[in-house]
Amino acid sequence: MEVYLDNNATTMVDPEVFKAMEPFFCTIYGNPNSLHKFGAGTHPKMVEALNYLYEGINAADEDDIIITANATESNNTVIKGVWVDKILNGNKNHIITSEVEHPSITAVCKFLETQGVSVTYLTVNEEGILDAQQVKDAIREDTALVSIMWANNETGKIFPIAEIGAVCKEAGIPFHTDATQAIGKVPVNVQACNVTYLSFSAHKFHGPKGVGGLYVQKGYELTPLLHGGEQMGGHRAGTVDVASMVGMGLAMHLATKPEALEFENTEVKRLRDKLEDAILELPETVVIGGKDNRTPNTTLISIRGVEGESMLWDMNQKTIGASTGSACASEDLEANPVMNAFGSDSELAHTGVRFSLSRFTTEEQIDYAIEVIKNAVKRLRTISSSYAYTPKHHVSEL
Amino acid sequence: MEVYLDNNATTMVDPEVFKAMEPFFCTIYGNPNSLHKFGAGTHPKMVEALNYLYEGINAADEDDIIITANATESNNTVIKGVWVDKILNGNKNHIITSEVEHPSITAVCKFLETQGVSVTYLTVNEEGILDAQQVKDAIREDTALVSIMWANNETGKIFPIAEIGAVCKEAGIPFHTDATQAIGKVPVNVQACNVTYLSFSAHKFHGPKGVGGLYVQKGYELTPLLHGGEQMGGHRAGTVDVASMVGMGLAMHLATKPEALEFENTEVKRLRDKLEDAILELPETVVIGGKDNRTPNTTLISIRGVEGESMLWDMNQKTIGASTGSACASEDLEANPVMNAFGSDSELAHTGVRFSLSRFTTEEQIDYAIEVIKNAVKRLRTISSSYAYTPKHHVSEL
Repeated sequence: MEVYLDNNATTMVDPEVFKAMEPFFCTIYGNPNSLHKFGAGTHPKMVEALNYLYEGINAADEDDIIITANATESNNTVIKGVWVDKILNGNKNHIITSEVEHPSITAVCKFLETQGVSVTYLTVNEEGILDAQQVKDAIREDTALVSIMWANNETGKIFPIAEIGAVCKEAGIPFHTDATQAIGKVPVNVQACNVTYLSFSAHKFHGPKGVGGLYVQKGYELTPLLHGGEQMGGHRAGTVDVASMVGMGLAMHLATKPEALEFENTEVKRLRDKLEDAILELPETVVIGGKDNRTPNTTLISIRGVEGESMLWDMNQKTIGASTGSACASEDLEANPVMNAFGSDSELAHTGVRFSLSRFTTEEQIDYAIEVIKNAVKRLRTISSSYAYTPKHHVSEL
Repeated sequence: MEVYLDNNATTMVDPEVFKAMEPFFCTIYGNPNSLHKFGAGTHPKMVEALNYLYEGINAADEDDIIITANATESNNTVIKGVWVDKILNGNKNHIITSEVEHPSITAVCKFLETQGVSVTYLTVNEEGILDAQQVKDAIREDTALVSIMWANNETGKIFPIAEIGAVCKEAGIPFHTDATQAIGKVPVNVQACNVTYLSFSAHKFHGPKGVGGLYVQKGYELTPLLHGGEQMGGHRAGTVDVASMVGMGLAMHLATKPEALEFENTEVKRLRDKLEDAILELPETVVIGGKDNRTPNTTLISIRGVEGESMLWDMNQKTIGASTGSACASEDLEANPVMNAFGSDSELAHTGVRFSLSRFTTEEQIDYAIEVIKNAVKRLRTISSSYAYTPKHHVSEL
């Protein structure tokens, strides 16, 4: 049995989404900017897609949603746009973010630091989140932007976006949130939360890879990251990838319609909890950041004495896919930065395994995964040098 | 009969390419960076795709090809990377380009001018091209980059890339070329032409929209446009769009293998010439830039007294798609900048119609197009106020 439990890394394209994309490869293939029927033929489904995107995040009609290649591009667009407009060509010089953002936020900030920009990386507490008061306290005269993720990719922990949005609004500072891991898992409402910029990637909610979006509140337009043609009202040049845009729109609709969010927070959550509870029956296992206030599909579990990579290997042998954390950083074996941020001791920091489910995950798959995981933990603890030496080790419990 | 003669705007995805992409949406959908089989399952076809890309432009093994969203991103990556590395953080301040580049070059340069960068826009001659001596004469102590397109999107005119590459190499200045309109039409060889950076877009050679490439010669790495994860060796962050990358690789192979280039330069050229010759039988028609030294699929023809947009409208009624120039700029009715550059008088500048064929264009389609075009010109000239007033007008010839 194949069991894919790495949906925070990427998801399967929903077959219904793929079906909607299909005509735009070899049949309705015109450039949407062209004046003839081959171009205009793409418009109805593009309009429908855009409507789905607006609806999915409750954007106002006068606001903008720019189609990008992915959330990484959206994140770069916001932070570098603010850099050009407010810092290079303005009198601001400070950005506030958190220490547990996705690399596409952190790496941009690190780059801007080399260019003389001051960046505050807010720390997270033991639960892996921060509060709005921390943001408020960090705001300076020269703060150009606050960028805090909606939900963490590794733990699923949800940040207090409405409260942070209110703080930013009061201070008159643009608020960006990377909602890549929130779409389709929790309600995302840019108006209610006073969000200025919001990033997302279709492939995290059963849309295709290679396409994402950036919400921009009216009045907060930025110098584009991609200069060129007049696509996206001049805010993002480059021929629009119609198939992907149509796919993303439908995927947004299928992931955010009320019954879908309901299913995610009941059925998907139930299977996630079943898996989690079964693993927690093993001794010396812990949910990183605790169980509260998480996206319903995610659990990051530390299993003392078991290297995360070894667990992945054993599970992979049984055709189960999971992760030690962000796939975007998983090519190296650095300790998981989120776990470091939580203050895990250095041994534990290498023992996290992230399981992320989706609406396509079945009960049978979870039952099979539980069996495989329990066997893998048993085997790996038997041969673990670190587990043998830890004082909390009780071999009898295995 | 539907006749698509706007292949310089975008192309149909080759059904064979689509077939190669299909498994990567709903079946082999893992994140290539993931450590499990769902991720690793994507690798063989990605490697094959990369090999096709290297082969297609004759890149050396030690050089880099970065997968981007499109040539617009590739172009922005090069010019803004040079800006950050050589201008903001170096002692250069000058870029050389031409006045007939694609908007994704020109708009970036215009932006950099607002940031204090000096840009030289080399003029083109009556044939729509420039020579290497112009580049040599424009080079200054503080020149950071030369960026000249391989082939023009509107006229198809081919620039002397080998000669310009030699000039840049001798001067020790990096040479970027936007080869978007050259791939699959003429041989593109980065090593033979001393190219430092080269941009391309898959959707111009029967690959999918939303994916492109950037060739980077070893030793000329730039600060990335998209910071984030470690994808593309840290040179372009963002989850790799596997389906699109696989599609682009195969599309590159199918478009650049010797027999494909041969077909393009015999059969496609023959049909282009047949269409062109038929239109040139009409009085007061002229090929902008002349017939020499063009990509074999393109003709930009000025038809005195006939507004380009009116021609498009008439042809569209008969299900023929063509263009007045770059689709990236075609939403407004500005006179075609390429035609302005050629020194066409202001009336003529609005009379250009671009026909761009592909390997999927058939003889029957060209015959049908010729009939429709002749009728459209006749009708439009009859009702044309400008044509009636021009002294060269000979109504009897129609």
